[in-house]
Amino acid sequence: MAKLEGKALVAQGGGPTAVINQSVVGVVLEARKFPQVTHVYGAQHGVNGIINEKFVDLTEVASSNLEAMAKSPSSGLFSTRDKPDEAYCAKIFDVCKAYDIRYFFYCGGNDSADTCHILNKQSEAVGYDLRVIHVPKTIDNDLEVTDHCPGYGSAAKFVAQAFAGVNLDNRAIPGVYIGVVMGRHAGFLTAATALGRKYEDDGPHLIYLPERPLTLEKFCADVQEVYSKYGRCVVAVSEGVENEKGESIAAQFTGGEVDSHGNVQLSGTGALGDMLAEYLKKNTKIKRVRADTLGYLQRSFLGCVSETDQEEARSVGEKAANYAIRDGKDGSVIMKRTGNYAISYDLTELKNVARLTKKMSDTYINEAGNNVTEAFLNYARPLAGPLPEFALLDAPAVARILQK
Amino acid sequence: MAKLEGKALVAQGGGPTAVINQSVVGVVLEARKFPQVTHVYGAQHGVNGIINEKFVDLTEVASSNLEAMAKSPSSGLFSTRDKPDEAYCAKIFDVCKAYDIRYFFYCGGNDSADTCHILNKQSEAVGYDLRVIHVPKTIDNDLEVTDHCPGYGSAAKFVAQAFAGVNLDNRAIPGVYIGVVMGRHAGFLTAATALGRKYEDDGPHLIYLPERPLTLEKFCADVQEVYSKYGRCVVAVSEGVENEKGESIAAQFTGGEVDSHGNVQLSGTGALGDMLAEYLKKNTKIKRVRADTLGYLQRSFLGCVSETDQEEARSVGEKAANYAIRDGKDGSVIMKRTGNYAISYDLTELKNVARLTKKMSDTYINEAGNNVTEAFLNYARPLAGPLPEFALLDAPAVARILQK
Repeated sequence: MAKLEGKALVAQGGGPTAVINQSVVGVVLEARKFPQVTHVYGAQHGVNGIINEKFVDLTEVASSNLEAMAKSPSSGLFSTRDKPDEAYCAKIFDVCKAYDIRYFFYCGGNDSADTCHILNKQSEAVGYDLRVIHVPKTIDNDLEVTDHCPGYGSAAKFVAQAFAGVNLDNRAIPGVYIGVVMGRHAGFLTAATALGRKYEDDGPHLIYLPERPLTLEKFCADVQEVYSKYGRCVVAVSEGVENEKGESIAAQFTGGEVDSHGNVQLSGTGALGDMLAEYLKKNTKIKRVRADTLGYLQRSFLGCVSETDQEEARSVGEKAANYAIRDGKDGSVIMKRTGNYAISYDLTELKNVARLTKKMSDTYINEAGNNVTEAFLNYARPLAGPLPEFALLDAPAVARILQK
Repeated sequence: MAKLEGKALVAQGGGPTAVINQSVVGVVLEARKFPQVTHVYGAQHGVNGIINEKFVDLTEVASSNLEAMAKSPSSGLFSTRDKPDEAYCAKIFDVCKAYDIRYFFYCGGNDSADTCHILNKQSEAVGYDLRVIHVPKTIDNDLEVTDHCPGYGSAAKFVAQAFAGVNLDNRAIPGVYIGVVMGRHAGFLTAATALGRKYEDDGPHLIYLPERPLTLEKFCADVQEVYSKYGRCVVAVSEGVENEKGESIAAQFTGGEVDSHGNVQLSGTGALGDMLAEYLKKNTKIKRVRADTLGYLQRSFLGCVSETDQEEARSVGEKAANYAIRDGKDGSVIMKRTGNYAISYDLTELKNVARLTKKMSDTYINEAGNNVTEAFLNYARPLAGPLPEFALLDAPAVARILQK
């Protein structure tokens, strides 16, 4: 096979993660090793930066700078919410031709995989040699085929540490705590809040996922039951929870603002949490009800990274470069779980990932639809990695003197 | 001086912090060294646990358990929002007498210092030997006399890492980001969001503190100015910001729920952030405006602790035990800053701390009242300690081919 000479281009799309820069740096450092790669470019702000020709030259960037960026959360090449259609992709394709780009790596979720898929078909249709690789990332963990997605493990670690902490806070000053977690259609991240549980009565005691319809009546009854038992209750709710008609509960309270993908705005507002808290205050006798919406910290907090996630994100980028440049392949990089716990890497066709959303397996959700199973914990634990230790006081009670 | 024989009692009041357990463990381990201390008790849920005689015996608790609890966020002895008056303190005093408690350590903020103060006066009035020490803690950092408060440094580190991350996120997908930070009357914690700034154009670009009145018109004009310059804007707002009449802006939107201290509920609702975001959307042409309310994670997140804060919290507890038991003194433990940076410990009279709130020095706030000064950063930096590293990509731009 003749070596395909030309430039490599890498870009990032969609919501940032704590480790998406690891993947980009994996692509860049690996691509720079191949003599047929004349330059490695980065597009700023994803596909938007391609059609507007906002490129930076990564060919000679110091590896120390790349390594420092790799450890930084968010998208170092910046991102975009643009979701290219055929016409948009034709523009991308024109730019690729003009710059002699022969290898394109797009790091993103299922929308980014779709862009790769369209671009791949367009290049094949006109016989322009362009290798296209989708490099997976998403804190939602909702991509098909792959065992899990880079970015998920670190976000899972963040929400697990957050709920381990608020659970201790809720012990100290009892009441109901509701934490709203990111995840539009898949509950993986919300489910990960359970990873911080250590003691039998640790919260979150209730976990509501987009995979199961939520009625406010059931929500209220569930909370009452836990509160009666423990005198307190910690609840994790996905921002994407829906009623039985499949309507977003959050959307009813945000005025329905939509982004350019036609998705309702779920993040950057406390409406869902506040509404649920209000509902509980009105319909129970519980006085202290508090709601937090975890917000952007889940995907961008500086200094909370799963080491496993970090290493895998790097590997996925390195593999992407090799699949495209060494092997001449197109596709989406996937991870396969082997043993307990190891990962092997492979490539799947772009159409198997593009635009598709993976939901949580039924085996990961309890019968009542308000908690996760041991199977889910076993799935997610190695991805988040070890959490900081904590302990309750283990001290004997003192017999009362004055009362009784 | 004859050694005062009897029991020691330790308790925690008010909002938890990441290191309040360090102070308790400092008290306990140190108090256990003195032969005149017959037992060390802990009251569960602060003063409420005293009047209800909910004591645990800490005299023989394994030091490994204590050390594990010390590293855990939140209040291991649980907390209370009760704010004792004279009658309440008389009940506490009766319990102290019944249990032969001679040393009382109360770990909390200015309300807890007030409880100590009342109790101290009551014991003196009847000639019952009771040493009372207030062990300072608060993420708000608003206690008088002391240079700073244990608990603040870790919360400062958390918000600095949060804003360093969301600033990178805001670079990737530009718009306006508003983060609402805890701090009812003092802006120290909100100000600490600036500690994560590294590059010239890093956010938070605007910081609004309770020490300066906020008008929505000025807020809007400030954001517009930053947005025009950078194409994006990151804002840190204290939950306690007030209008020019001294009215809480948040309270207008929360229905005015008050706790048992008569304080308006500021935490556990996204109302202030959402309202500010709505106001910007209506009064500017900026489309992407997002608001997060950082909430309980600021004081209870598992795994984000300032080492300096941790060590000082422990020392404050140890010093408290020695002041009371070895030296026979009452008071509130304070920290004095020496050199750059070291701390020496001392005791101040309870009346100097009780019920008083320290606000930020004018030298810490810029002229425009929308940012902090270098003097503040120098004050706060050693308290939060070093933050995780991050870096922007340093790559040359590529000249355009198709456009221009």
